[in-house]
Amino acid sequence: MTDEPKTQLHHRHLEQARAQVIELLTRQAVERELVSKSEGHGGQDAVVSQLVARQQQTALQQRMLRFHPADIAFVLESLPRDAREMAWALVRPERRGAVLLETSDAVRRNLIEDMPPGEIAASLHHLESDDIADLIGSLPEDIGAQVLERLDRADQVEVRSVLSYPDGTVGAMMDLDFLTVRDDAALEAVLRLLRRKKKLPAETNQIVVVDRGNVLRGVLTLEQLLLSEPEQSVAEVMTPNPQFFYTDDPVTDAVAVFERYDLISAPVVNQHMEVVGRVAVDDIVDTIQAQQERDALRQVGLREEEDLFAPVWQSGRNRWPWLALNLFTAFIASRVIGFYEPTIEKLVALAALMPIVASVGGNTGNQTMALVIRALSLNQLSGPLLRKMLIKELLIAALNGSVWGSVLGAMTFMLYHELPLTAVITAATVFELLLAATAGAMIPVLLERFGRDPVLGSSVLLTAVTDSMGFFIFLGLASLFLV
Amino acid sequence: MTDEPKTQLHHRHLEQARAQVIELLTRQAVERELVSKSEGHGGQDAVVSQLVARQQQTALQQRMLRFHPADIAFVLESLPRDAREMAWALVRPERRGAVLLETSDAVRRNLIEDMPPGEIAASLHHLESDDIADLIGSLPEDIGAQVLERLDRADQVEVRSVLSYPDGTVGAMMDLDFLTVRDDAALEAVLRLLRRKKKLPAETNQIVVVDRGNVLRGVLTLEQLLLSEPEQSVAEVMTPNPQFFYTDDPVTDAVAVFERYDLISAPVVNQHMEVVGRVAVDDIVDTIQAQQERDALRQVGLREEEDLFAPVWQSGRNRWPWLALNLFTAFIASRVIGFYEPTIEKLVALAALMPIVASVGGNTGNQTMALVIRALSLNQLSGPLLRKMLIKELLIAALNGSVWGSVLGAMTFMLYHELPLTAVITAATVFELLLAATAGAMIPVLLERFGRDPVLGSSVLLTAVTDSMGFFIFLGLASLFLV
Repeated sequence: MTDEPKTQLHHRHLEQARAQVIELLTRQAVERELVSKSEGHGGQDAVVSQLVARQQQTALQQRMLRFHPADIAFVLESLPRDAREMAWALVRPERRGAVLLETSDAVRRNLIEDMPPGEIAASLHHLESDDIADLIGSLPEDIGAQVLERLDRADQVEVRSVLSYPDGTVGAMMDLDFLTVRDDAALEAVLRLLRRKKKLPAETNQIVVVDRGNVLRGVLTLEQLLLSEPEQSVAEVMTPNPQFFYTDDPVTDAVAVFERYDLISAPVVNQHMEVVGRVAVDDIVDTIQAQQERDALRQVGLREEEDLFAPVWQSGRNRWPWLALNLFTAFIASRVIGFYEPTIEKLVALAALMPIVASVGGNTGNQTMALVIRALSLNQLSGPLLRKMLIKELLIAALNGSVWGSVLGAMTFMLYHELPLTAVITAATVFELLLAATAGAMIPVLLERFGRDPVLGSSVLLTAVTDSMGFFIFLGLASLFLV
Repeated sequence: MTDEPKTQLHHRHLEQARAQVIELLTRQAVERELVSKSEGHGGQDAVVSQLVARQQQTALQQRMLRFHPADIAFVLESLPRDAREMAWALVRPERRGAVLLETSDAVRRNLIEDMPPGEIAASLHHLESDDIADLIGSLPEDIGAQVLERLDRADQVEVRSVLSYPDGTVGAMMDLDFLTVRDDAALEAVLRLLRRKKKLPAETNQIVVVDRGNVLRGVLTLEQLLLSEPEQSVAEVMTPNPQFFYTDDPVTDAVAVFERYDLISAPVVNQHMEVVGRVAVDDIVDTIQAQQERDALRQVGLREEEDLFAPVWQSGRNRWPWLALNLFTAFIASRVIGFYEPTIEKLVALAALMPIVASVGGNTGNQTMALVIRALSLNQLSGPLLRKMLIKELLIAALNGSVWGSVLGAMTFMLYHELPLTAVITAATVFELLLAATAGAMIPVLLERFGRDPVLGSSVLLTAVTDSMGFFIFLGLASLFLV
């Protein structure tokens, strides 16, 4: 990051400082609204309060200067839209790019809404080209294209090259700013080279070693550089077979490898083993965190991260696809019940008991599914292991179906004093749990086999199955044996 | 890590290599079982196949020597218990500690089941004391105590000090192996000191700077050390106000700060600002990943990570508390329906329609809840913002209730051709969504306010509310206006 203050607030004080700034800004936004309403009346009061407001704003600007861009982003995300606009105006133009880099996509789009493309391009000027590419990639396509055209010629070329890698590949996430040295250089020469620079790229824990043709030969850690004799050559000291990535490796692989081998950074090569970039652990941490947030929202059908302060209409529609799907599957379950209306008419207790069977099935299926999704994401489910796991889950379902089906049977008997009904609900619970375990194990496996993300939508599909089939099993058994 | 091979397989080849080893071991375990069954018959066949097996094992041991401990842990976790036992026997004693460090808790407990405490202590001998503390903390208490007694005296003291910090604090996760220098030293002296060491602690990107009393003064990055003139003093070159942590800071704070400021490592101090440890980014990455896995399992009520190959009985019981809770809440919802049995008896269509209302409510509530939990974890919900968000969610619920309630009403009319029933289901949907939004917003907030984790159990509580109240609203309205 450019020109960031070296001295920052300690994180404990920071939270208070942020909260104060947020409160001040929120209050000011309210006051400004009051002032603009009373402006018609004019008068000295308005002039005075405007003066006070201006003083406060200068003080606020001073305070925000000590904030890291990530903290300014936090403040912006926590503010309602009118106060957010005021706060954005207080951020110096040369820091805006760094702040935009740290906000969520939704808030970023809100912030640049009113900025002309030329101004956006100017605010990105201080950033590295891979960061510019990230930002442009997150903008609406037409705006992104306009901003791109207004960048420096050199930036444009680099940004276009990063944008050419598909989303979710290492190529799209790599840094372009990194150090390389030749393997036949002496350490002394490397040290001289470094001293001539004022600053190394962020997260530089190692220097990439290449040959004459820019082909990866190894990595030289700063530690090796510091601890070895200056007369030695790079090739003697370096680590010769480091972990590296191809530009088309999926990001998920990079995350796994960084975690497994505790890496700080790793070189990225093209198909000819020529070094074209570098991945660093800070991008990995961001990726994991973003993934985690996205998964939590995606599981309940919220596709994108939502701006907490987006208009109601926009947020409401964001939730429609999932609601529609849910309504559709619930409707199918309802038709299963509708089919058995005559049976229910004769024994209305069935209506009260059927949701219990469906609910316990959903619970069991979800537990199995969580375990299978975890095993899938760890690559731990090959063919024979899958069969073994399915058998185990079926045995657990049989065990728990018998135990908790009997409990449910006992409760039913206490309420209705009917042995046949008790037998039917116990049997239905066993069958439902067996079916739920099968569905819970197979749905994510099948989704993955058809090239889909096993997390997205698996829960709706499962509930659709456990609800419909739960009603079918219970009411079906009842219509056969009770009515 | 000690004595790890410098040259490792590239991650692309590694996956194949692991899969091959897993397959070989699984097959061998099956063969061994066959041999032991046919042993009664004795004869040359058995001797030959034992010889072959021994040769294969030596080959396997050679291959696993090239694996990183994390990869061996992966292999062990992917193997059924009999094959896992065979594989564990192939791991050299001096590498076992490093492997144990990388396995899940459940698999770790399985591996040490048959090891006497002395042997466990011996296998931990090569590890750093903070890693030993992590391992001992994850063992059953009595075994942990026995292992602790058998450690070297020096290790014992350090391990006990780490174990004295409560779980979930920075003190419990920090490393004890790190470098410090005095602020009045010259860089030259620091360089000499480093050259005398053969190796720096893992993830050393900076050296902690202290004064005479071991009080934190700043950090000196390797970059600053490399780029500055050797005659300068540490104090002139260092970063004077670095981010640091207190031993009692929660780990979640450390994760947030590392992510926000892209840290690689940071010093840890006690209440007197004396440096006592260091946190590095690899621990942060592990923490985030573990958190992510745990959350996914906890959401469906699986408390601990489960060993895929644990016995059925053990895995089955692991799921009981949640199943019992689910049965209990489903039973309450069932009693709500039971109360309206006379109403259903008169209009059996209600039985078929009521699950739709409850299901759409559950969906809406879960969406609101996911957003609120995210905002809570980002610390973005103070008092006035909470009110603002609740109002917004209620407006969304009113909008979506009207839209999708009307759709549901239209479907109901097509099926049953009854206008009053159509009106009731539309109204019930609107009320249910308003209630679901309120519950979805308030449940995590209340859980947090009472000092509970807002993720754990929130989903059960929500479904309990949306189901019971959904049935109550719909059947209540029906009993008032239809029957």
